[in-house]
Amino acid sequence: MRYPSGTRRNQLTRQSTTRNSTTNYSNRGMSLEDDIQQTNQFYLEVNKAVIHKKPTPIQIVNVHYPKRSAAVITEGYFQAKSTTDFNGVYRGKHIDFEAKETKNKTLFPLANIHEHQFIHMESVIEQDGICFFLIRFATYDETFFISAQLVLSFWEQMKQGGRKSIPYDVIKKDGYLIPFKYQTRVDYLHIVDQLYF
Amino acid sequence: MRYPSGTRRNQLTRQSTTRNSTTNYSNRGMSLEDDIQQTNQFYLEVNKAVIHKKPTPIQIVNVHYPKRSAAVITEGYFQAKSTTDFNGVYRGKHIDFEAKETKNKTLFPLANIHEHQFIHMESVIEQDGICFFLIRFATYDETFFISAQLVLSFWEQMKQGGRKSIPYDVIKKDGYLIPFKYQTRVDYLHIVDQLYF
Repeated sequence: MRYPSGTRRNQLTRQSTTRNSTTNYSNRGMSLEDDIQQTNQFYLEVNKAVIHKKPTPIQIVNVHYPKRSAAVITEGYFQAKSTTDFNGVYRGKHIDFEAKETKNKTLFPLANIHEHQFIHMESVIEQDGICFFLIRFATYDETFFISAQLVLSFWEQMKQGGRKSIPYDVIKKDGYLIPFKYQTRVDYLHIVDQLYF
Repeated sequence: MRYPSGTRRNQLTRQSTTRNSTTNYSNRGMSLEDDIQQTNQFYLEVNKAVIHKKPTPIQIVNVHYPKRSAAVITEGYFQAKSTTDFNGVYRGKHIDFEAKETKNKTLFPLANIHEHQFIHMESVIEQDGICFFLIRFATYDETFFISAQLVLSFWEQMKQGGRKSIPYDVIKKDGYLIPFKYQTRVDYLHIVDQLYF
């Protein structure tokens, strides 16, 4: 499956442009993905967890092999992910999560999560893996830990003709706000510790 | 890090060309990677485990966005993997492994495993993940399950000037031969069950 040209990042974006630093939860304008990468790097350095971002799958059609230098991919296409963005191991348990950022102020739209990813999350839960979403509301500069089960329940409703988003209020009520820290900008394992161990 | 042009697959290859079918362990000429993908697909379908191959990381330099059709990557480079090829979740535990095929008859060369990958495996073991190699000797049509600890011990010796390979005899003695089955061509979870559960 190839991405259609251009317009998928309208509602959801990884590139936060907010510069709001009036709360303790400020991320100072870095994207959620950057913050997670930095956090994972810290976890790795202190031997707390081994969690990596999965590379984007690319369908390679043509490769050029110039003499005495690196192979060049001259034709390739982005493929849709069939799994989540991040996974790894923490205290023996499998960790699996997706990170999404939205500029919306009142809801988190489900449109940018592929059906494959929902199905993947159901399978991971069935295997007793720890599965969740990290959702950042860029306008409020707030990042929430939300169980995959909650998101899946909204997806089930959506499939039956229900709403295509999760209200901000539900996320605020049933999710867990992740405090900003300098060394672990999105310290999601702090929440995992509380919920699973 | 970019791959140098061309010559990395001399000793180790994913494309088995053997057609030896005189034993029960015959894989009938399919590559180890194909067999693992088929096995993982079966595990997924019967809800036994969720294990996927990680996409090859690619450094994207140029992308062309034609009107009304998919974005085309027009310049990209292969990057070295910093982790293993396969990971996922089985009975709540994190599974992490690398698959290698060799045409060598007497030893498994360590040359094609990057230092990053060894370091990654050490970290996964420290987090209590299940970590191993699947190594196929194409000439004998034999696929072995070998603990990451065994391979790491040879890597430690190599760093101190020791041999740059693991003898076939050691693998035969300390590894576990994986029988060929029709539905699970490389039923490595059978060995995982014996060793970890």
